[in-house]
Amino acid sequence: VQPRVKVWLEEDGRLVMSEYRLRLLAHVAECGSLTEAATRMGLSYRRAWGKVKELEQNLGVTLVESVHGGAGGGGSALTPAGRMLLDRYAAFLARAEAAINDVYADVFGGPGRGPSST
Amino acid sequence: VQPRVKVWLEEDGRLVMSEYRLRLLAHVAECGSLTEAATRMGLSYRRAWGKVKELEQNLGVTLVESVHGGAGGGGSALTPAGRMLLDRYAAFLARAEAAINDVYADVFGGPGRGPSST
Repeated sequence: VQPRVKVWLEEDGRLVMSEYRLRLLAHVAECGSLTEAATRMGLSYRRAWGKVKELEQNLGVTLVESVHGGAGGGGSALTPAGRMLLDRYAAFLARAEAAINDVYADVFGGPGRGPSST
Repeated sequence: VQPRVKVWLEEDGRLVMSEYRLRLLAHVAECGSLTEAATRMGLSYRRAWGKVKELEQNLGVTLVESVHGGAGGGGSALTPAGRMLLDRYAAFLARAEAAINDVYADVFGGPGRGPSST
């Protein structure tokens, strides 16, 4: 038996951050392009752009900015605030998972032992 | 911004315990009747019975037993193993939520402060 966890952030009942949104930001950071990030997520560019804008509005910060020129002829990049959110949220997810494993082990008597064997 | 969490237990990718199943067991404990517990969950008796049986098979323990006679003319009750699972899983949920709040505060700089204000 394995504990599983899903975490997200809400503000006034509205979803403001999730693993899905984290993946979108991570793809932007990796690809340097919102178009390519959208493709990787199976989203239209318009849909991905809308998700970024919604997230920026909810959080009150700019997360993704256009980058002009350069070898690739421009693209998108995370702002420092976007990078910080990406890093912190990734840490939040990893530590949340570890915390749930600890709580499970503590309540049910150790990893690998299920509710039935305690 | 508020962290939210959903936890459940899986075995080999199969869902074996969840908040929904916990509520079903809690209603059985409260009502002393699987029929009444099913009604409170908006389930047919057959569906509720199936969920209990599935849970018992997955965990390898009997959780609900028939109670014959008495003032109410019989009903259902949790076995000691069912009671233990109910109590432990409720503790697991409560402690999971507290742990996630702690992790969030630690990563994002305190309750009430969101990702945007750090």
